[in-house]
Amino acid sequence: MTPPRLATFIVGGKARYGAITGKGVVDLSARHGQWPTLREVIEAGALRRLAEEADAFAADFPLDAIAYDIPIPSPEKIICVGVNYPDRNEEYKDGQAAPSNPSLFIRFPRSFVGHGAPLVRPPESPQLDYEGEIVIVIGKAGRRIAQADALGHIAALSLCNEGTIRDWVRHAKFNVTQGKNFDRSGSIGPWLVPFTDEAQIADIALTTRVNGELRQQDRTSRMIFSFRKIIAYISTFTTLVPGDVIVTGTPTGAGARFEPPIWLKPGDVIEVEAEGIGLLRNGVVDEGAQ
Amino acid sequence: MTPPRLATFIVGGKARYGAITGKGVVDLSARHGQWPTLREVIEAGALRRLAEEADAFAADFPLDAIAYDIPIPSPEKIICVGVNYPDRNEEYKDGQAAPSNPSLFIRFPRSFVGHGAPLVRPPESPQLDYEGEIVIVIGKAGRRIAQADALGHIAALSLCNEGTIRDWVRHAKFNVTQGKNFDRSGSIGPWLVPFTDEAQIADIALTTRVNGELRQQDRTSRMIFSFRKIIAYISTFTTLVPGDVIVTGTPTGAGARFEPPIWLKPGDVIEVEAEGIGLLRNGVVDEGAQ
Repeated sequence: MTPPRLATFIVGGKARYGAITGKGVVDLSARHGQWPTLREVIEAGALRRLAEEADAFAADFPLDAIAYDIPIPSPEKIICVGVNYPDRNEEYKDGQAAPSNPSLFIRFPRSFVGHGAPLVRPPESPQLDYEGEIVIVIGKAGRRIAQADALGHIAALSLCNEGTIRDWVRHAKFNVTQGKNFDRSGSIGPWLVPFTDEAQIADIALTTRVNGELRQQDRTSRMIFSFRKIIAYISTFTTLVPGDVIVTGTPTGAGARFEPPIWLKPGDVIEVEAEGIGLLRNGVVDEGAQ
Repeated sequence: MTPPRLATFIVGGKARYGAITGKGVVDLSARHGQWPTLREVIEAGALRRLAEEADAFAADFPLDAIAYDIPIPSPEKIICVGVNYPDRNEEYKDGQAAPSNPSLFIRFPRSFVGHGAPLVRPPESPQLDYEGEIVIVIGKAGRRIAQADALGHIAALSLCNEGTIRDWVRHAKFNVTQGKNFDRSGSIGPWLVPFTDEAQIADIALTTRVNGELRQQDRTSRMIFSFRKIIAYISTFTTLVPGDVIVTGTPTGAGARFEPPIWLKPGDVIEVEAEGIGLLRNGVVDEGAQ
């Protein structure tokens, strides 16, 4: 059975949100003016209900009439986990053992495009790389959330191609900020799938393909830092709030891993897929060539 | 002459903005309902005009009636420069030469309090440390801003105590995110001073005192990465927009530098001061003791 799917999209130059159904797109934003975006829907605890009520409506738009935006256009935070699957830690070849705490960095919303839009390769570097990841969206605020309670704070799931300008990640002494924040260098989507229970994420396959060729493949059961641990750890220092986006780390197999490295180039198509969540597909263009 | 000063503050449980004048506080938010916060005032290019018009009004509140918030409560971005004054690079003792690009990290607004509010020392660590810094606020959007044009993109100046939980900065393999983002561990303010010209920032003294004792003292003319360079570099990868906050780095002399280190403790008073901008003062409390 297809899970309910809630997306943010543009039609007629206007940002809307709604349900992606077998019949087409149901515009829920037109029916819920009190909530400007899916962030406010989540804050109101209404995501599941909206997904369910969409079944009763006819489609407002055909699927090919919409352009996807990232599901939460203006979250308070987008926090990314740096190294979180076996073998991935070894790719850094720095002789260090697996870390005891997750490495975390921040991305701005403008570093992402939605499903179907091309990633943008900037003129500053040819080293655009992919990283397929699972996204969790926070539904319930909390600080110092216990691991036992952590999953109760998740509202929804999504996917991320955590596109990276690889040489700019090592541009400075500390921190990967600049290589992770080129405008439109990554993607999130296509949609949010409301979170139901642990079985939905405990052991699902996550794969990344480039032009149909399998590049990354692993299972969430092998994550170094579990979803529970990530939520507990992050909420130790910052209060998580509804709509916060956590990008949970990528398996081994990014383009930087090959010798010589294989960078993304215009015309490539990258697909990030996870069981029960969906498939996020993006092309690549050179900046200015859109 | 005192420069115009625009602050965000709480009176009667309500967030407002206005001018801090010799007569008291002029509530400009009540007179400009079209702009909910100073971010929208800056987007409208109206910061200078509002500062000037305040002279014509009587004060709405006495100075002691307001509680300062951070000047821009919800900027799109708060970007911090990691190592930016001589000798500070050497404090890391890792044998590396001065970096050729600035190290950048991101802080969330909730990691800061306003002028006069105490910094919060969390139970997870005793290593709360200060870092006095000058803040620039972007007034005009831009991408790949040339150094020659960079200062034209600044709307205002402010101060930051870029409070840090020092051991959590090294919690993971890369990135300082967690040690820089404990809720209410730093401060920004007290206010925005509209930017006029380069002389206002080219060679001003920046000092930090703890309980009256001088701890940090340097001049902006000695910054490794100038204000121009910082704006040009950051805008290479991300589009800067009005209201964006850039925290430009701290001089040598943080508490971590002493042997043994001197961490902040409840009852301490930290003052960050810069010529022509103002003085940002905060106490320290243990979390839960407020």
